Amino acid sequence: MRAQVLRAYDEKLSNDRWVVEEDVPDPKLTKSTDVIVRIGGAGVCRTDLHIIEGVWKPHMDPSGDKLLPIIMGHENAGWVEEVGKEVEGLKKGDPVIVHPKITGGTCLACRRGFDMHGPGTFPGLDCNGGYAEFLCTSERNIVPLPRTLAPKEVAPYADAGLTAYRAVKKATRHLLPGESCVVIGAGGLGHIAIQCLKAMCAADIIVVDKSEASLKLAEKSGADHLVKADGDEVAAVLALTAGNGAEAVIDFVGEKGTTSKGLAMTRSMGSYYVVGYGEDIRIPTVDMVITEKNIIGNLVGTWAELTELMALADRGLVELATAEYRLADANKALHDLNAGKIHGRAVLIP
Amino acid sequence: MRAQVLRAYDEKLSNDRWVVEEDVPDPKLTKSTDVIVRIGGAGVCRTDLHIIEGVWKPHMDPSGDKLLPIIMGHENAGWVEEVGKEVEGLKKGDPVIVHPKITGGTCLACRRGFDMHGPGTFPGLDCNGGYAEFLCTSERNIVPLPRTLAPKEVAPYADAGLTAYRAVKKATRHLLPGESCVVIGAGGLGHIAIQCLKAMCAADIIVVDKSEASLKLAEKSGADHLVKADGDEVAAVLALTAGNGAEAVIDFVGEKGTTSKGLAMTRSMGSYYVVGYGEDIRIPTVDMVITEKNIIGNLVGTWAELTELMALADRGLVELATAEYRLADANKALHDLNAGKIHGRAVLIP
Amino acid sequence: MRAQVLRAYDEKLSNDRWVVEEDVPDPKLTKSTDVIVRIGGAGVCRTDLHIIEGVWKPHMDPSGDKLLPIIMGHENAGWVEEVGKEVEGLKKGDPVIVHPKITGGTCLACRRGFDMHGPGTFPGLDCNGGYAEFLCTSERNIVPLPRTLAPKEVAPYADAGLTAYRAVKKATRHLLPGESCVVIGAGGLGHIAIQCLKAMCAADIIVVDKSEASLKLAEKSGADHLVKADGDEVAAVLALTAGNGAEAVIDFVGEKGTTSKGLAMTRSMGSYYVVGYGEDIRIPTVDMVITEKNIIGNLVGTWAELTELMALADRGLVELATAEYRLADANKALHDLNAGKIHGRAVLIP
Amino acid sequence: MRAQVLRAYDEKLSNDRWVVEEDVPDPKLTKSTDVIVRIGGAGVCRTDLHIIEGVWKPHMDPSGDKLLPIIMGHENAGWVEEVGKEVEGLKKGDPVIVHPKITGGTCLACRRGFDMHGPGTFPGLDCNGGYAEFLCTSERNIVPLPRTLAPKEVAPYADAGLTAYRAVKKATRHLLPGESCVVIGAGGLGHIAIQCLKAMCAADIIVVDKSEASLKLAEKSGADHLVKADGDEVAAVLALTAGNGAEAVIDFVGEKGTTSKGLAMTRSMGSYYVVGYGEDIRIPTVDMVITEKNIIGNLVGTWAELTELMALADRGLVELATAEYRLADANKALHDLNAGKIHGRAVLIP
Repeated sequence: MRAQVLRAYDEKLSNDRWVVEEDVPDPKLTKSTDVIVRIGGAGVCRTDLHIIEGVWKPHMDPSGDKLLPIIMGHENAGWVEEVGKEVEGLKKGDPVIVHPKITGGTCLACRRGFDMHGPGTFPGLDCNGGYAEFLCTSERNIVPLPRTLAPKEVAPYADAGLTAYRAVKKATRHLLPGESCVVIGAGGLGHIAIQCLKAMCAADIIVVDKSEASLKLAEKSGADHLVKADGDEVAAVLALTAGNGAEAVIDFVGEKGTTSKGLAMTRSMGSYYVVGYGEDIRIPTVDMVITEKNIIGNLVGTWAELTELMALADRGLVELATAEYRLADANKALHDLNAGKIHGRAVLIP
Repeated sequence: MRAQVLRAYDEKLSNDRWVVEEDVPDPKLTKSTDVIVRIGGAGVCRTDLHIIEGVWKPHMDPSGDKLLPIIMGHENAGWVEEVGKEVEGLKKGDPVIVHPKITGGTCLACRRGFDMHGPGTFPGLDCNGGYAEFLCTSERNIVPLPRTLAPKEVAPYADAGLTAYRAVKKATRHLLPGESCVVIGAGGLGHIAIQCLKAMCAADIIVVDKSEASLKLAEKSGADHLVKADGDEVAAVLALTAGNGAEAVIDFVGEKGTTSKGLAMTRSMGSYYVVGYGEDIRIPTVDMVITEKNIIGNLVGTWAELTELMALADRGLVELATAEYRLADANKALHDLNAGKIHGRAVLIP
Repeated sequence: MRAQVLRAYDEKLSNDRWVVEEDVPDPKLTKSTDVIVRIGGAGVCRTDLHIIEGVWKPHMDPSGDKLLPIIMGHENAGWVEEVGKEVEGLKKGDPVIVHPKITGGTCLACRRGFDMHGPGTFPGLDCNGGYAEFLCTSERNIVPLPRTLAPKEVAPYADAGLTAYRAVKKATRHLLPGESCVVIGAGGLGHIAIQCLKAMCAADIIVVDKSEASLKLAEKSGADHLVKADGDEVAAVLALTAGNGAEAVIDFVGEKGTTSKGLAMTRSMGSYYVVGYGEDIRIPTVDMVITEKNIIGNLVGTWAELTELMALADRGLVELATAEYRLADANKALHDLNAGKIHGRAVLIP
Repeated sequence: MRAQVLRAYDEKLSNDRWVVEEDVPDPKLTKSTDVIVRIGGAGVCRTDLHIIEGVWKPHMDPSGDKLLPIIMGHENAGWVEEVGKEVEGLKKGDPVIVHPKITGGTCLACRRGFDMHGPGTFPGLDCNGGYAEFLCTSERNIVPLPRTLAPKEVAPYADAGLTAYRAVKKATRHLLPGESCVVIGAGGLGHIAIQCLKAMCAADIIVVDKSEASLKLAEKSGADHLVKADGDEVAAVLALTAGNGAEAVIDFVGEKGTTSKGLAMTRSMGSYYVVGYGEDIRIPTVDMVITEKNIIGNLVGTWAELTELMALADRGLVELATAEYRLADANKALHDLNAGKIHGRAVLIP
């Protein structure tokens, strides 16, 4: 099959071509519960740029370039192509989206539903992913798609959407009418989050971003209040919340000072959700005590949560702006992303 | 002041006049935290008919007619008229809605926020209520109204709305996208519940009612599916939920067989919320075990929940259909209610 | 292998021999994730008597005697004998306890951890169980035992213990110091429940039973108050709870009037947990409304909960009184159980 | 009455006498809900040393020494001496413990039960406290004591105990059998926390402290594992938790590196509870994301939680080591505390 392969890291992202299109052997079923998916769409994610840069090398490939060459692509959707001999309920041609983490399903974390915390592999990060015609995954990773949803339109939900959804879900479990939720960063994840919040709770949604275009997208996505991140955003949020701050703050940026600002926007007894990453969180213990705030980490989401997100999409409650590129144009998609030219999410299609 | 007074029970509701307009002394401040409210609107509730019938006599007045004469009216809103000498933050003219249960605020139930389970009085049921020009209550019962809301338009939220809201809130704490909520009965409480559900979660809302007019109101209120209660409503709900039933069923009727039907509509691990009352719940223990269902009682709501509901109303997320009657026409309002002529809720105005 | 086989129902439990010892073929691995367990102990449960009576026939075998002959036994523990070719982390000789419900693991209920609500089979009820030398199950049903625990000593935890644990766990999530928990029935499940409560919360434990012997076992298990079920048990519980009733009532009987008494012992806003079954629950809706009680169904438990229970057993926080019988004496064990001669739980050993 | 008065800050804690015994006017009832308590015991707390140092001046007294002179003492218990004319249910001589924060009770935080987050005063910090014969507080601050508990034996529960209890309570709401809880610091708060954990959950309790004496107290209090804080304490905790870390870590120190160590001891999806304070928390956002940890602030506790803690004390499930000093010896008690000579908590008695 044709695949886009990463053969070498490029620390400064200065090369023209990061991935190379190659003819590689089709993936084969090895376990009785394996599933081969014909890719209909593969999301292009900022994490892919970080992989190219080698950011994940210390975590995934500490002892050398053993991971390379690798087929990138961790946000995958398509159609079932072939199933292992003990797979039930799936047949060739079924449209599906693929949960990104492959786990055995028998550890305690998995058995409680928290697959992302079980041992396993993450195609596109530590084994071959979906920048290709086919992907090998497990039946436990398959979420069947309702007829309303085409694979290429939903692929980015597999990771970006799922991550936004999980953080929002945690917040909506405690947000009540009359309370507020701040969303920092109205980009790819943020604009999904705003729509999920609108669908799942009645809190006031305050969106903070430095880009006018993002704030417009936020408004269209359902934001109640827009705050330009011009240096006075903390004061602006306090003004919108009677001086108290918001009961929930979801930070999709996590760098350039958003962590301290996000915490300052969080009300006493409120929760600050960390999704974006980059800088360190730094806060005096005495402030945590006096305000009784919570700082909540967030990692992707569960298989069940991916089905919940698909239910939202199926009902039209979340919509995703996508920019399509041919698989052969993977480098262009990655460079456009790096250059900030993509609004919404880029998706590679066959 | 002028007041509508209940002087005698009427078990069969056969009299023409149930309440009598009288000139009675204005209520006086007795405790330092008392507040006198000038009534702007007093909701007329089915419970008022039950009071007239004597249904509550065994609970409230077991040893005779000592409660009578009583001024009815437990859904009250208006403006602060006078405050006790230790009341802070309230002044004459402030628009307010009145939480219906007066409690001391020092018992454990109150201190945990559950005032309705503390010892206290319930104006309109066991002491003088709001079918009058003035009402004496406590500062702990006052919820200030935002400028957007007029007392006569919100009075029924004090009890009917609050009760619907509390049940909905419990359900939305567990309802997730892809799940369903059945609302049985789209009347006064039900149509508020549907709006609250729509605002607070993304579950599919299935409304069951025997009246076409109510189903139309349900649709306008945000129902996703309408089911005519024609005898096959259980099958219809199962068909809408892949044969499983709904994760939450909120029953605003509680009689004429809705309890067994409502439980049959409830999914395994789901919750059936009892709000309306009349008949007995009857279910085999083995069914409770095999299905692991929950049956959840619901009683009015807390002061904090009344502020949450007012936040929904303030933002236009719930709206109440009201029919206004002059205080002098209280008997007409009650008879119209009894005759099923009122759509939405009747409110007595000065 | 040798096995005890049920060949015919005995509605009145009047026969001498209910099961027949036979030489049957050893179970074979069929799926790549199957596991054969050499039985070290098989619990003898009241449900086994109900199976013999044919109580479960309408549920499990509605169209005739197709289920029979069947090897009974749903509370199994032993040692791994053989594993399917894709099973990892288990090897011959490992001591294990077996979760009773075999499910595929891919439905939404399973993926959220609630295996008992997914489609599947229940060895000993609808396919061959553990009254035998070997049992075929799935890797997803295996809970490895710590070295401290011998299979024959823990087998009854697989169902009886797990059921008691799950109900207790739900109660301890809300029980606080100063609150009370009533346990109705201090038999096989009840005496485990009392120990779990003692280990997992600080609530006062009030045990209600009609048998002096059971009350003694309750006291030894950690009960704070013993109430003889002599007709005045509701009054006795109210007296122990300042007239309020208990915040949690766990009913392991579910017949002969315990449901209405249990509900009467339940405090406003409290929860009544249904575990034992037999009679109907019957309660006026108005009582559910005024008191805002909850009625909570309970079904076995999850795989994760079985690991939690094993952690309690491993630390010596729960102990099980067992009476051992040879597999060949299965009929004697069943008759002794039926005759009320077993204190604790009977276990068949090889 | 006699009282110990702070007249001047002593930044370096270098003076011999920090408080001065004076004859001051008895406190008077001003509001109808006021209560005068005859002090039976006033806890001496490290916060008192911080007050003397002026640490709280920027928070409580930013514009000068307007707060001084002040009677210190925020952990108070005694007997009702006199009550305001609208106080019900309390009479002279009743033994009581006093919740430390006086609030109006009508704000949303108070009405949800979270008094410590409502506006109010904190006797001993910003108005006169309990280093005296009498204290004026409000009926909303009074928790009646059961007969088993003497005021001088429980006074430190009013703040130190309550703070430990609240953090433990949060942890026990999610801790399950087989999981672990680390307690960092087995001093005044820590040894109460260990006892509360033992009473309220079945998690393994791992206590980390650098002092052998404290570890001995921890063992006596119910710790399952003792870890000397000798530099390798993170590795030691990981070794005790199969390399995973603990599901809950409660840090009563909050300085000298315990925050980063505490976070390193926290398992993925686990919670790190901040109680002690001093240093900054610093953690990379990417670590919060990958591990999905939670950092939870903690502030004193609610009135309801003080009643829960008294229920534990009443049943003998928590015990407090106290060292008694006469009120006249307040300076000696404070100096002994500062010199590390007090094991348990010092209490001033009349």
